[in-house]
Amino acid sequence: MSTIVVPSVPTGVLGDAWRRCVGTGRLNLALRADYQESLALVQSEIGFEYVRGHGLLSDDLGIHRPYDAGGHRGTRYSFTYADQVLDSWLERGIRPFLELGFMPSGLASGDQTVFWWKGNVTPPRDHGEWAALVQAVVRHAIDRYGLDEVRRWPIEVWNEPNLVNFWQDASQEAYFRLYEVTAAAVKEVDAELQVGGPAISPGADEWWAPFADFVTDRDVPVDFLSFHAYTTGPAQHVPFGTYQTLRDPQSLLDQFAMPAKLLAGSRLEGLPTHVTEFSTSYRPDNPVHDTPYQAASLAPVLAGGGDLVDSFSYWTFCDVFEEEGVPAAALHGGFGLLGHRQLRKPAYHLYTFMARMGQDVLHRGADHLVTRDDAGRVTVLAWQPVGGTDAPEEPERHELRLSVPLAGADRASVHRSRVAPDQGDVLGAWRHLGRPASPTARQLDLLHEASEPVRSLSSLDVVDGRVTLDLTLARHEVTLVEIDPVRDETPAWLDDARIVGPRAAQGV
Amino acid sequence: MSTIVVPSVPTGVLGDAWRRCVGTGRLNLALRADYQESLALVQSEIGFEYVRGHGLLSDDLGIHRPYDAGGHRGTRYSFTYADQVLDSWLERGIRPFLELGFMPSGLASGDQTVFWWKGNVTPPRDHGEWAALVQAVVRHAIDRYGLDEVRRWPIEVWNEPNLVNFWQDASQEAYFRLYEVTAAAVKEVDAELQVGGPAISPGADEWWAPFADFVTDRDVPVDFLSFHAYTTGPAQHVPFGTYQTLRDPQSLLDQFAMPAKLLAGSRLEGLPTHVTEFSTSYRPDNPVHDTPYQAASLAPVLAGGGDLVDSFSYWTFCDVFEEEGVPAAALHGGFGLLGHRQLRKPAYHLYTFMARMGQDVLHRGADHLVTRDDAGRVTVLAWQPVGGTDAPEEPERHELRLSVPLAGADRASVHRSRVAPDQGDVLGAWRHLGRPASPTARQLDLLHEASEPVRSLSSLDVVDGRVTLDLTLARHEVTLVEIDPVRDETPAWLDDARIVGPRAAQGV
Amino acid sequence: MSTIVVPSVPTGVLGDAWRRCVGTGRLNLALRADYQESLALVQSEIGFEYVRGHGLLSDDLGIHRPYDAGGHRGTRYSFTYADQVLDSWLERGIRPFLELGFMPSGLASGDQTVFWWKGNVTPPRDHGEWAALVQAVVRHAIDRYGLDEVRRWPIEVWNEPNLVNFWQDASQEAYFRLYEVTAAAVKEVDAELQVGGPAISPGADEWWAPFADFVTDRDVPVDFLSFHAYTTGPAQHVPFGTYQTLRDPQSLLDQFAMPAKLLAGSRLEGLPTHVTEFSTSYRPDNPVHDTPYQAASLAPVLAGGGDLVDSFSYWTFCDVFEEEGVPAAALHGGFGLLGHRQLRKPAYHLYTFMARMGQDVLHRGADHLVTRDDAGRVTVLAWQPVGGTDAPEEPERHELRLSVPLAGADRASVHRSRVAPDQGDVLGAWRHLGRPASPTARQLDLLHEASEPVRSLSSLDVVDGRVTLDLTLARHEVTLVEIDPVRDETPAWLDDARIVGPRAAQGV
Amino acid sequence: MSTIVVPSVPTGVLGDAWRRCVGTGRLNLALRADYQESLALVQSEIGFEYVRGHGLLSDDLGIHRPYDAGGHRGTRYSFTYADQVLDSWLERGIRPFLELGFMPSGLASGDQTVFWWKGNVTPPRDHGEWAALVQAVVRHAIDRYGLDEVRRWPIEVWNEPNLVNFWQDASQEAYFRLYEVTAAAVKEVDAELQVGGPAISPGADEWWAPFADFVTDRDVPVDFLSFHAYTTGPAQHVPFGTYQTLRDPQSLLDQFAMPAKLLAGSRLEGLPTHVTEFSTSYRPDNPVHDTPYQAASLAPVLAGGGDLVDSFSYWTFCDVFEEEGVPAAALHGGFGLLGHRQLRKPAYHLYTFMARMGQDVLHRGADHLVTRDDAGRVTVLAWQPVGGTDAPEEPERHELRLSVPLAGADRASVHRSRVAPDQGDVLGAWRHLGRPASPTARQLDLLHEASEPVRSLSSLDVVDGRVTLDLTLARHEVTLVEIDPVRDETPAWLDDARIVGPRAAQGV
Repeated sequence: MSTIVVPSVPTGVLGDAWRRCVGTGRLNLALRADYQESLALVQSEIGFEYVRGHGLLSDDLGIHRPYDAGGHRGTRYSFTYADQVLDSWLERGIRPFLELGFMPSGLASGDQTVFWWKGNVTPPRDHGEWAALVQAVVRHAIDRYGLDEVRRWPIEVWNEPNLVNFWQDASQEAYFRLYEVTAAAVKEVDAELQVGGPAISPGADEWWAPFADFVTDRDVPVDFLSFHAYTTGPAQHVPFGTYQTLRDPQSLLDQFAMPAKLLAGSRLEGLPTHVTEFSTSYRPDNPVHDTPYQAASLAPVLAGGGDLVDSFSYWTFCDVFEEEGVPAAALHGGFGLLGHRQLRKPAYHLYTFMARMGQDVLHRGADHLVTRDDAGRVTVLAWQPVGGTDAPEEPERHELRLSVPLAGADRASVHRSRVAPDQGDVLGAWRHLGRPASPTARQLDLLHEASEPVRSLSSLDVVDGRVTLDLTLARHEVTLVEIDPVRDETPAWLDDARIVGPRAAQGV
Repeated sequence: MSTIVVPSVPTGVLGDAWRRCVGTGRLNLALRADYQESLALVQSEIGFEYVRGHGLLSDDLGIHRPYDAGGHRGTRYSFTYADQVLDSWLERGIRPFLELGFMPSGLASGDQTVFWWKGNVTPPRDHGEWAALVQAVVRHAIDRYGLDEVRRWPIEVWNEPNLVNFWQDASQEAYFRLYEVTAAAVKEVDAELQVGGPAISPGADEWWAPFADFVTDRDVPVDFLSFHAYTTGPAQHVPFGTYQTLRDPQSLLDQFAMPAKLLAGSRLEGLPTHVTEFSTSYRPDNPVHDTPYQAASLAPVLAGGGDLVDSFSYWTFCDVFEEEGVPAAALHGGFGLLGHRQLRKPAYHLYTFMARMGQDVLHRGADHLVTRDDAGRVTVLAWQPVGGTDAPEEPERHELRLSVPLAGADRASVHRSRVAPDQGDVLGAWRHLGRPASPTARQLDLLHEASEPVRSLSSLDVVDGRVTLDLTLARHEVTLVEIDPVRDETPAWLDDARIVGPRAAQGV
Repeated sequence: MSTIVVPSVPTGVLGDAWRRCVGTGRLNLALRADYQESLALVQSEIGFEYVRGHGLLSDDLGIHRPYDAGGHRGTRYSFTYADQVLDSWLERGIRPFLELGFMPSGLASGDQTVFWWKGNVTPPRDHGEWAALVQAVVRHAIDRYGLDEVRRWPIEVWNEPNLVNFWQDASQEAYFRLYEVTAAAVKEVDAELQVGGPAISPGADEWWAPFADFVTDRDVPVDFLSFHAYTTGPAQHVPFGTYQTLRDPQSLLDQFAMPAKLLAGSRLEGLPTHVTEFSTSYRPDNPVHDTPYQAASLAPVLAGGGDLVDSFSYWTFCDVFEEEGVPAAALHGGFGLLGHRQLRKPAYHLYTFMARMGQDVLHRGADHLVTRDDAGRVTVLAWQPVGGTDAPEEPERHELRLSVPLAGADRASVHRSRVAPDQGDVLGAWRHLGRPASPTARQLDLLHEASEPVRSLSSLDVVDGRVTLDLTLARHEVTLVEIDPVRDETPAWLDDARIVGPRAAQGV
Repeated sequence: MSTIVVPSVPTGVLGDAWRRCVGTGRLNLALRADYQESLALVQSEIGFEYVRGHGLLSDDLGIHRPYDAGGHRGTRYSFTYADQVLDSWLERGIRPFLELGFMPSGLASGDQTVFWWKGNVTPPRDHGEWAALVQAVVRHAIDRYGLDEVRRWPIEVWNEPNLVNFWQDASQEAYFRLYEVTAAAVKEVDAELQVGGPAISPGADEWWAPFADFVTDRDVPVDFLSFHAYTTGPAQHVPFGTYQTLRDPQSLLDQFAMPAKLLAGSRLEGLPTHVTEFSTSYRPDNPVHDTPYQAASLAPVLAGGGDLVDSFSYWTFCDVFEEEGVPAAALHGGFGLLGHRQLRKPAYHLYTFMARMGQDVLHRGADHLVTRDDAGRVTVLAWQPVGGTDAPEEPERHELRLSVPLAGADRASVHRSRVAPDQGDVLGAWRHLGRPASPTARQLDLLHEASEPVRSLSSLDVVDGRVTLDLTLARHEVTLVEIDPVRDETPAWLDDARIVGPRAAQGV
């Protein structure tokens, strides 16, 4: 095994694209206690900047309220719940990436719905009323949170209009009309508000050119572009679950890169680009989300995605999520970084590892990322490279040797955190406990404990300004190594051999 | 004004019927953060023993889960959400008063629903499957919380089956069948579990005799009786609100007393009797719930209801409640003791006042209740007597003089807490602020502060073992007076006149 | 009574001199739980910027540690406790105003001490060792908190060297030598650190000229000036207490102004000037500190002191304080804004009232201060003017009428908070309870409640852009009025007369 | 290695003697925030019943307060601090084991003191005043906490009167007189209060017979016996530290057993017996307290001590302790289970392991203790047997095989927690970091993390009602194994091989 000599001069900047945004279950769920506890945990250990999810305008948030009683008719805009959602986000240091949708039933032109919770996916009955609704939402937000704040909230028009499930007939024409009306409504409130789209799903690259043409021809404002990326192939369903073939990690990075290529030379070239959803599987019941493989496969994506797009938003931060109904077990293959009861999955730890990296990138490779922070700490993220789910099984061990520069100390503390099968592996622990659908308090304690990364603290000599790090990773392992310079304060008179053992007896 | 001489020897015991149980919005709402914060507040200051609400078996709690996929068919019972609800209740020191309903869609015989959230109100498609569901629920509760605990949970069969809105065709025959099947299923799990009903609404006294006959004839177990009581008359609707004529407080007490009268001599005579819902109005959008009148009118009911029934459960403890949809304003005439954002209404304070009463009743009158606790503190609850909403307006002042016994001290501290229009009156304060539908943080601060009872602390001499208390109450006022014996520890050398003022100058 | 017409255009800026700094008991006490809870409360409601107290270098903080054992001799600087103190301050958003003193016994030239806790007040045995100690402290602070942070910490040399109690023989010569050595030591670490003095007590104005001469002659660095101000006259002692004659509030402002006058034309002219201690009485056992008089007498000082000095530091924020030994009762005339058990005294509320003022001063008078904040809220602080303790007793009522400008609304909410005898008066409440030295939990509840300002919320019409405010104040009252513009959101269909009463019956 | 077959029928009961009591630094320190946080942690994870420490009557708690001012003379008893201490203990679920001492300076007959904090160790100037003080303390406690509560507080007379450091001249006669006066004073308040002594240090067995004779001859009440036990030999001092020779664990158990042997046949036979202090070293600066050896050596003592005495109180629960002055480093060989900053030492974990044991003892050996709780969980505490510090170094590995009975399941989860050098070893981690005297926030995070026991979760088959447990322990390791029966809820259709890997690709 050859030694990778990490340069001591930075080669780049890590940036925050990887944690600029994260996905969430529908906004009504943000009212829940477990959701808020999960978000607080995520924010304290990862610190996303934005959160994006469906359902802002759906009936269960109660904004659009037509009335007809006692001789009075009209529409009221009510923010009793929306305020609670946005207040709770902002209190936890996370801003909304507003997705405008789905259609309130009182404004819908049809009754087609998506998901167990019945989001209406038909165009508005009246585009003027839609514009009024959009403006009411934006104006209320400005009243409550201030114009400076709301200008920082991207406003995305609808979700995956290219799919018949999410937009009646997947009508491009109807979407473009909705986009235009919405963008005009938003900009009428304030020209510096940011509006964008088209929020398309994977496999819809044929939408980019028409979208560019449309907004160019009609001079429609576009402040950012958005789309989704997944690696999923065909599905095999079982009760309360789905297995799927997944492509390899590079395929995600390829998807990230595609729109910029397709739009080169168009008016949309160079706009901020946001992957407003990504993961391996797009199913909320695929157990892959709960595995160490999920973390290992996404490690290179988090390490490198920021070169390609301005944000890529993991779908979703927690399993408080109901597209397919009420999850039937604590771990159920949900999208979340966190399972129910704040169980931390391997992918959660991948994000917490990333959150401990410095901003100066010293080196990046197929199985590692090395950074340094302002305090001089060097941080190594390492992972076993993996393929798609149809690839041959990865070897049981993966080895790596790094020569890491460290200034200003003769010794370094080395703190390692590991996630791999049966190490910080909540799904593995859950199996050991017999997969309890409703874990008891005792079982939850065990699961929380077992889902901690396995950590160790040691120290190494710094020789010629370098520490040699020999890492052996298990299959599907993701590991974080934090290397801090050590200042030795040991007084001259201390001698640990005198505490206990034969020399203690001698009193020497 | 004559002086009421309060005896120094107790005339009775107050008991806990008034706080044995409280109502709640549907159980799915118990997952919400604002619900849990509201419950925590209520429990810290009032301390109810049980909580009862709809929706345990409805789809949004997700217990009954038929499946058919990948070649597997069957029904799974899932408690991911139910556990969270029950855990959170028990952690806050409150037990479930289980209401079995409404019908899971996978087990329903029809599609009639009630409320905005669509509780299915049709009989089960298959009574065997219903019994299996009931047993799964009870057995899971016993597994998780222990048999001793679950034996303390009353199990009530359905809700208001005498109303066509709540039970298809209001069919007595179908209800009796459901009751019998349910009772048998419960008792098969454990004979000491408590089952009861018929949970009828006001105005259904004609159900009592047939129910008694049915359970007698077929030897069906009944451990307790339950029914509801309200004082509401005809409604006048406006958008997002309802005004109604309400009867006087005595009519509630009359309703409490009726079943015992009707069932005298039957097999059901003497069974524990629970008013599983009561309030003035049965509408979740009647502003009367938010007024000082609500507190004044219920004061005699709380003071005296325990003589008539074993519990009477205020419907509901907070406004996290959605029968008519998402509430459109912070205060909206909801049932709750607490409004949204934990705004404390006058009725909330009536309950907190009751929670500070002692167990020994010294005296009770039309406008007061006097108690003493084990530490010797005497507590007076006083209120202006009110009529129904069609009564002439009550006078602006109500006066009361009590001679209160107090042992073992020469002086007494007198702590008074008042709730009346513009005193501890959240609705009045909200009006001063212009009725903001979505109060800002600043407005919420003002509302929380203004919803505190107005309090004062003074002291009185104890003469011949008695304190004379002169109370002047405002219209619709409810007042609490706490009288503590004082032990004077003032040292001989202290002289407050020397702190400031002319004598201070003299140094005398 | 004439109406004071408050201008609608600001006449000045309030500034933060009044809360730039606050005093504390000796630093070892900062380790206590009740101290930290008190500080957290003070910071959440007032928000001081700096805290200053004695004892940084005293033995009970354990920094200076000579050793001689096992054949090893030397001095170790230990920060186990100092770190805890500074960490806890900074965590609560307050910075140290470092006072260097008193003398560690291992470095002292004599054994004279001050206070029950025996702070050594003798010069250093060796000025080189003193300089080494000072540098060790400053360097450790920079290591731990960063240079930018520590540059913001004023470093004050010693405390009241003009008094024989605080500095052996009150030797000016010895103090100047200490000052010079200290300033040089500090600047050697970093030239931008701020050092100052001479921290003299009231009645020592004769020190200013020699101090100016000394530092000028020897070119000694001085970054700021510091001194103390109290209004106390002769004392009359009783057990555990002291009564004293106090001068009027203006005498405090006169003291604030004096050094600038005396130093005009000297090299020290124009330096930042800090009153590093002030109050009425300088005794930690004078009950005046606990009275409404204390608040009323300091109100004009807080309102106007910022015109004269850069900070004036109330001595002290809480009664966790031990100069005269362990306080023998919950309320004992301690210096604190807070008594033991976080009991809020009237002076505490004066500070919380100030914390709610806006930055734009609209008007200031002998009995009021009117400000406006950026949100358009107008805030009025009003007080009854008082004299010294030998003045004739102030009248029972003080009246005030203000015409207050308010833009952009037809109506205003008016929120008033009052502190006066028996209103928000913890000492009065404590008397009603018989002055319990060790209050029970029940008594503490009553005291906490009774020490809340009496608050009310109402609303007034805005006529021609103005609200007319009629204020009647009780003797020694300090009152805060917050006036917010109101936007009326009442829907057209609401009619409160339909909720309850005769019109309700008519259903009109 | 032979297999130890653990019986399935209990052979005894574990009892709570091991956690009935714990030691504390002097009571004034209980006012500190870090003390209270440490106690809260200890109570949440261990749950001691009583706490005992010095200084209840010392000046810095301020109870005994003679006064002479303004013409008034007398003595006041003040509980401002004592109440805070006792309140905070009781709030955390721990009761005082009252030690009466040391002497208030106002009541002392001399000025000899002990420790840096100068506890006065001379007899009272006046035994009547002493009795009055004792009664004032006891009566106040009864007033505040109730007689039932105070009857549960053992009252111990003085500390180690057999040592000249702790009791002037170590006068047995003077101690017996103090004991007699104190016992009489206590019993005069209430005959059921518990009083005892003589609280002697190790090596004072010659006190037992005279004590028995004295109380028998004069019919002095004795409700319990108390004494101390340590294994320390000669000391070698270095700055801020001490090394000592320690005897083996059995010597502690021998000390526990001795008084009962010596008192057999006396009037004191059979009285409750409390070891009110024990540890290895009696020095607060011996690093052995911080080592895994400390845990390994005390494991057999905790496992077996309850057979010999009614309680044995670890001296002390945390390092907030000042006998030798302010500790100069975060880890300094303090007595505590917890170091400064709540750093958990190996001995802390030994106690948390004990707290997870069941009450039914299945087996006990030289290197293990096996218990079962009511829920059927089997818990194994295992340790490497160690000798005194002069013994030959223990081997690097210790092996153990147990056949453990487990009813009602086919599989068991096995949760192991390890403490050994570099595993849950805070001192080892501190060394890796260079022994920082004042750890930064970053270093504290690392230390807290590294002081967690190393945990793993796995599962084993249950064969013929038994699990075979093979344990390999490192040198000085203490390990806890928790074995829970597992109920397998895995649905028939789940197949983990389909999630990822070649079979996933096949969709089988």
